[in-house]
Amino acid sequence: MSIATLDTTQHPNLPASAATLFNAKAKKQLTFEQIAEEIGRNEVAAAAIFYGQAKPSPEDIQKLSSLLEIDQQILESQMGGFPDRGRTVEMPPKEPLIYRLYEIVQNYGYAYKAVLNEKFGDGIMSAISFSTKVEKETDKDGNNWAVITLRDHLTTGQLSH
Amino acid sequence: MSIATLDTTQHPNLPASAATLFNAKAKKQLTFEQIAEEIGRNEVAAAAIFYGQAKPSPEDIQKLSSLLEIDQQILESQMGGFPDRGRTVEMPPKEPLIYRLYEIVQNYGYAYKAVLNEKFGDGIMSAISFSTKVEKETDKDGNNWAVITLRDHLTTGQLSH
Amino acid sequence: MSIATLDTTQHPNLPASAATLFNAKAKKQLTFEQIAEEIGRNEVAAAAIFYGQAKPSPEDIQKLSSLLEIDQQILESQMGGFPDRGRTVEMPPKEPLIYRLYEIVQNYGYAYKAVLNEKFGDGIMSAISFSTKVEKETDKDGNNWAVITLRDHLTTGQLSH
Amino acid sequence: MSIATLDTTQHPNLPASAATLFNAKAKKQLTFEQIAEEIGRNEVAAAAIFYGQAKPSPEDIQKLSSLLEIDQQILESQMGGFPDRGRTVEMPPKEPLIYRLYEIVQNYGYAYKAVLNEKFGDGIMSAISFSTKVEKETDKDGNNWAVITLRDHLTTGQLSH
Amino acid sequence: MSIATLDTTQHPNLPASAATLFNAKAKKQLTFEQIAEEIGRNEVAAAAIFYGQAKPSPEDIQKLSSLLEIDQQILESQMGGFPDRGRTVEMPPKEPLIYRLYEIVQNYGYAYKAVLNEKFGDGIMSAISFSTKVEKETDKDGNNWAVITLRDHLTTGQLSH
Amino acid sequence: MSIATLDTTQHPNLPASAATLFNAKAKKQLTFEQIAEEIGRNEVAAAAIFYGQAKPSPEDIQKLSSLLEIDQQILESQMGGFPDRGRTVEMPPKEPLIYRLYEIVQNYGYAYKAVLNEKFGDGIMSAISFSTKVEKETDKDGNNWAVITLRDHLTTGQLSH
Amino acid sequence: MSIATLDTTQHPNLPASAATLFNAKAKKQLTFEQIAEEIGRNEVAAAAIFYGQAKPSPEDIQKLSSLLEIDQQILESQMGGFPDRGRTVEMPPKEPLIYRLYEIVQNYGYAYKAVLNEKFGDGIMSAISFSTKVEKETDKDGNNWAVITLRDHLTTGQLSH
Amino acid sequence: MSIATLDTTQHPNLPASAATLFNAKAKKQLTFEQIAEEIGRNEVAAAAIFYGQAKPSPEDIQKLSSLLEIDQQILESQMGGFPDRGRTVEMPPKEPLIYRLYEIVQNYGYAYKAVLNEKFGDGIMSAISFSTKVEKETDKDGNNWAVITLRDHLTTGQLSH
Amino acid sequence: MSIATLDTTQHPNLPASAATLFNAKAKKQLTFEQIAEEIGRNEVAAAAIFYGQAKPSPEDIQKLSSLLEIDQQILESQMGGFPDRGRTVEMPPKEPLIYRLYEIVQNYGYAYKAVLNEKFGDGIMSAISFSTKVEKETDKDGNNWAVITLRDHLTTGQLSH
Amino acid sequence: MSIATLDTTQHPNLPASAATLFNAKAKKQLTFEQIAEEIGRNEVAAAAIFYGQAKPSPEDIQKLSSLLEIDQQILESQMGGFPDRGRTVEMPPKEPLIYRLYEIVQNYGYAYKAVLNEKFGDGIMSAISFSTKVEKETDKDGNNWAVITLRDHLTTGQLSH
Repeated sequence: MSIATLDTTQHPNLPASAATLFNAKAKKQLTFEQIAEEIGRNEVAAAAIFYGQAKPSPEDIQKLSSLLEIDQQILESQMGGFPDRGRTVEMPPKEPLIYRLYEIVQNYGYAYKAVLNEKFGDGIMSAISFSTKVEKETDKDGNNWAVITLRDHLTTGQLSH
Repeated sequence: MSIATLDTTQHPNLPASAATLFNAKAKKQLTFEQIAEEIGRNEVAAAAIFYGQAKPSPEDIQKLSSLLEIDQQILESQMGGFPDRGRTVEMPPKEPLIYRLYEIVQNYGYAYKAVLNEKFGDGIMSAISFSTKVEKETDKDGNNWAVITLRDHLTTGQLSH
Repeated sequence: MSIATLDTTQHPNLPASAATLFNAKAKKQLTFEQIAEEIGRNEVAAAAIFYGQAKPSPEDIQKLSSLLEIDQQILESQMGGFPDRGRTVEMPPKEPLIYRLYEIVQNYGYAYKAVLNEKFGDGIMSAISFSTKVEKETDKDGNNWAVITLRDHLTTGQLSH
Repeated sequence: MSIATLDTTQHPNLPASAATLFNAKAKKQLTFEQIAEEIGRNEVAAAAIFYGQAKPSPEDIQKLSSLLEIDQQILESQMGGFPDRGRTVEMPPKEPLIYRLYEIVQNYGYAYKAVLNEKFGDGIMSAISFSTKVEKETDKDGNNWAVITLRDHLTTGQLSH
Repeated sequence: MSIATLDTTQHPNLPASAATLFNAKAKKQLTFEQIAEEIGRNEVAAAAIFYGQAKPSPEDIQKLSSLLEIDQQILESQMGGFPDRGRTVEMPPKEPLIYRLYEIVQNYGYAYKAVLNEKFGDGIMSAISFSTKVEKETDKDGNNWAVITLRDHLTTGQLSH
Repeated sequence: MSIATLDTTQHPNLPASAATLFNAKAKKQLTFEQIAEEIGRNEVAAAAIFYGQAKPSPEDIQKLSSLLEIDQQILESQMGGFPDRGRTVEMPPKEPLIYRLYEIVQNYGYAYKAVLNEKFGDGIMSAISFSTKVEKETDKDGNNWAVITLRDHLTTGQLSH
Repeated sequence: MSIATLDTTQHPNLPASAATLFNAKAKKQLTFEQIAEEIGRNEVAAAAIFYGQAKPSPEDIQKLSSLLEIDQQILESQMGGFPDRGRTVEMPPKEPLIYRLYEIVQNYGYAYKAVLNEKFGDGIMSAISFSTKVEKETDKDGNNWAVITLRDHLTTGQLSH
Repeated sequence: MSIATLDTTQHPNLPASAATLFNAKAKKQLTFEQIAEEIGRNEVAAAAIFYGQAKPSPEDIQKLSSLLEIDQQILESQMGGFPDRGRTVEMPPKEPLIYRLYEIVQNYGYAYKAVLNEKFGDGIMSAISFSTKVEKETDKDGNNWAVITLRDHLTTGQLSH
Repeated sequence: MSIATLDTTQHPNLPASAATLFNAKAKKQLTFEQIAEEIGRNEVAAAAIFYGQAKPSPEDIQKLSSLLEIDQQILESQMGGFPDRGRTVEMPPKEPLIYRLYEIVQNYGYAYKAVLNEKFGDGIMSAISFSTKVEKETDKDGNNWAVITLRDHLTTGQLSH
Repeated sequence: MSIATLDTTQHPNLPASAATLFNAKAKKQLTFEQIAEEIGRNEVAAAAIFYGQAKPSPEDIQKLSSLLEIDQQILESQMGGFPDRGRTVEMPPKEPLIYRLYEIVQNYGYAYKAVLNEKFGDGIMSAISFSTKVEKETDKDGNNWAVITLRDHLTTGQLSH
């Protein structure tokens, strides 16, 4: 089975921690499922930490350091600041798998908005402080289905008086 | 309660059916929840039909015609072709609610890809032939949560031999 | 004194309500200060309603209808849906006054982020559900100063476990 | 508590002084609040100096050199020129926190312009020579509010005779 | 001799006043030199008013109405608001004559900045509240030279303490 | 007083000569006014040579070599070719001072064209072979004014028979 | 044999004269070769006048009016101003035949520059005041060759002293 | 007299052969005219080889190696593949001399197409397999004219049956 | 079964003939397979004619006129000129089905180039004068496969001597 | 005969494996035809593996290692992850040969869609899990034809109920 790796010649502008973490992951041949289980986080959140898109807690850093055998001080210094998000995917995404998600926003964005507005009123999601997961379902014909779930707080309200 | 409407001065390039359907929806003051229930489709799919992003079946057209009191022949001639998708959202989306979904792709696209690849191998989603829904959850503190679910077939495989 | 008007040949894609409201405002020669006072809203919020960027409450519509002598049913049908935000300013803004605000984001965006992160932790503002105002100060030398204030809820937290 | 740091692999084109200053800040574990207090400047202005967006006075350089234990001659040679502004944020901003500010300009830019024009006449702000601050308010329910204030000179007048 | 005219099929988004003024100018066969003399403004400022880039004073409107035989009320209603600048030239400019000015900024922008910074310190021009003129010089060989002069207030100072 | 310097981390693609010249200028603490006087050129032209936007004559190179104490052979080899113009300013310019010049073209481009066309007929400027200068005026109230003058040959004529 | 026509639904922003001239050309079934001969201009220049890219002389207008049986006053009023060039081709060109010319600039632009610089020194072409022609050659194998010639004045010189 | 050189800090993505060839050209102080004569190719083609836009024959490599005193094996290994065209000019071109050629396509593209279509029918040029040259003419007044000629095969025909 | 139709509100800039032809096709309920058979052309070529991307021969026009019962003179006047190609798909394509073709070029473009270069040498395809077809295959499991074939002349050769 | 090589100065962001593989290919002077035959894959798929656009199986890696004499562990570590597709061609493609394929999508995209929709119904191709080949045909006149075939699964269906 293959594991997800990072080729820094293709991603020259990711944070220094991304190279540190992915190199250790490759050496240990760990999947994000294994890493997520170890640090007690969802797989997508674990992967987001690797790409520098989510802020690890001090406990996350400690566990990652221990699991991946990375010097804790190095991890702390590389991940001690705040995520500078948005630097992984050059938009529009060229990677086909990511493009499919982008395309769903492009095609169905207004359908989602219409349904969300009617259900919640005029409001907004946070897009940062939310939870998400990826699940795999296999139907009786052996077909695989990816189920992606987003759960985000929807603040009703708007430009106040 | 407000319902979602369409202002054609803001969307001059939607298909002719979009104006027909949204005008009738506004006159009847129907929500997509009511419409979806009537035509036996998910709310998001119903909204997608209104925006010209999904192809209605002949039965859908019949039920929409009847529910919205639109001449069936007009609907058939306006919706008899194939959807010319991708014309509703100008990317990057300027609408904040839709932008939040775009931002999730921008920030977490590679995290999703890494988890999907490790779970399913190298493959691709269809982004067209899938199901999706929006649910509303209210927690004990009265906060509202939007839960969006995507379920898409993930074809494993790639450039063949 | 001049009042702000709308030239629809320059803004062909604003919602239908924008033309309705601005025409009446021009005819009545009312400033946003006068309108805001009448409907009990902040001036910027009042202007945002005119540009279709904020959702008026039923009471707002009633008061606008009465103050501007616009048929209430027309206003209700034009403003009964949800705002389709983001269509007023083509980015980057070409209008110099608006560009100056854009430029502040371009130049000082990371400075704001650093200070906000250190003060609040990793989090996000809503950018929709906030309050804002513009005030005029004149110093002893007769110079005019514009003071713009934004007050937004900052949700701490991120991609959850 | 975390402090804001700079990962130069993510910001390869910031001025040399940015790396010098942020490295020292990380080593000393100082917040911008502490630095600002020391050099007698507003926090946002202090952060802007770190990002190369504002010109430090000779006194600022002296104090920064002393507080951060950086050789003063190095700082002087790296910061002796004039700021080459606008190189920190790639527009549109991908960082969500900065994007929210951008979005406010996109959605409410014309509302601000209308109110500013009616209050001050036809004129322009400087966007360079202004003051700004970020304050934190906590309401009785424990919610945090970020209050951002801009105060800029508004020159009335235009293309002269 | 030819005079400058406006073809609205090429400029569909100029303010309504632009068509009104240019049509009258064409009918009267007046140059901007003649118009400028009449209203007591510089030629470039006169042309800028025609293109909706500068705000005419009430006296300007009166004189234009009289000179061009346009109903004054129409002019007042079309020009009573504030200029929505920046809508004449789609950048980068495709018109060769305008492109040459753009090219000068592109090639010599930093040279101007360096000289301005050394002469004035760190500061900014208004770009709105300035004066400009175009003069024609013919040398002894009969060659024509265009001399363009900009005179703008340069505010020294920056992000204040 | 500060002098203009070059931070090559911010301008990685300027010609090699730019680093050579600016380093020497910084070491000598010379302004462009002093350099221009020495080589007998206008300040803007001198700065343009430093940024690689203008071709120095052999005499210019000799004088720069002598004034700045740079090995003449190095300068000759770095500046012996032809300028590859247009690589200093990424358009639209992000630097506010340069943006103001860009904005003048954006707002008043057609006004200049109309006046130039009426004064000179259908023709074109060279934008390369011209002269320009920056002057400083201080009015009786102590306000500083930047006066920028362009003088360019305007070739009348067009696509010939 | 087919003649070149204009479909205004594809070119909505060409000057009004373009529709007038092309309609008459279609009705008369004239080629640009025939028109060029009649008005004593090169074919490309004739076509450029039709597309609003070149200014016709009063004689050109007279001859075009007579040849194409268009009311001379209409032509004069539609073509009396100055060409607003650059609005025919949206760059990069999508039309394959025009794209081939664009591609030559993209691939061989620096080769042309190097040869022109070595032959003429540092200088510039006018790109407006030049002559050009298209010729057809058929070789002995019956292959057709298009020969395009540009002849433009190359001004030597640059940013002057 | 100056010769064309290459500054690799300005062109970091040209093929390795470009640096090899231009360095040798600079050392030998050869013009493209001299190089072209030596290898029996047109000057523009010779320059195109230097920029990696044309494929040299084995004989070209041998002659270049000998003329420029470059190790033949190095040249062969650097130029043995196929040209990866299109990487020299970032479009739209910022270099003014190249921009003038681009501008001709922008302004007169449809005029060329109309004349080519009428002369040759519906067809296409190759834009790769063609010949081109630059000539210098000096008229009796001492003015220099650049004459650029393109000769390309025009394939008539289109989407076949 | 559905047939392909054209909604002109979504494609405002297609040639006038596109609306004429698609309206008739919808009225007659004909597929491109039926139309292609009738006019003796490949289906893709037939569709390309409808979208204005291919030039019909006089016989094609005659047959289309007869089959679709369109006045022949109208068709001739609408289709008598030369195709102005490239105006159907706004790139990058937003329509998912077309995007998949675009994505193949994006991902495998260099793989095609490498194989084509090794098989044919340095050369170029015409992209206009070629043949293409779409076939449907159904495998024994009932899965449908689309087989798209392109056959284009590949001209070997390049910038000639 | 020439073989396809990779110049990493032109492709700085390809995966590390691309340099490894292409260097070995150049040293061995192997064509993709020879490599494809050896690893039992189609030529285009083989080339796609070299460019990092397709995932090699463990057997592919073993065979490539053996054929190209590359240390197997290096190949495995460089190619053990999942392809990060879409990074070879910067869109729109500047390379003329690849542009021709892009142009076919631009011009005939809707023609393909119309025919595919009528043949298969509303559906989508995978664009990842497909087969493709390039063949060379030489007609009796000695002309070479490139025949490109794509065979992709077309999933009928859409946004489900």
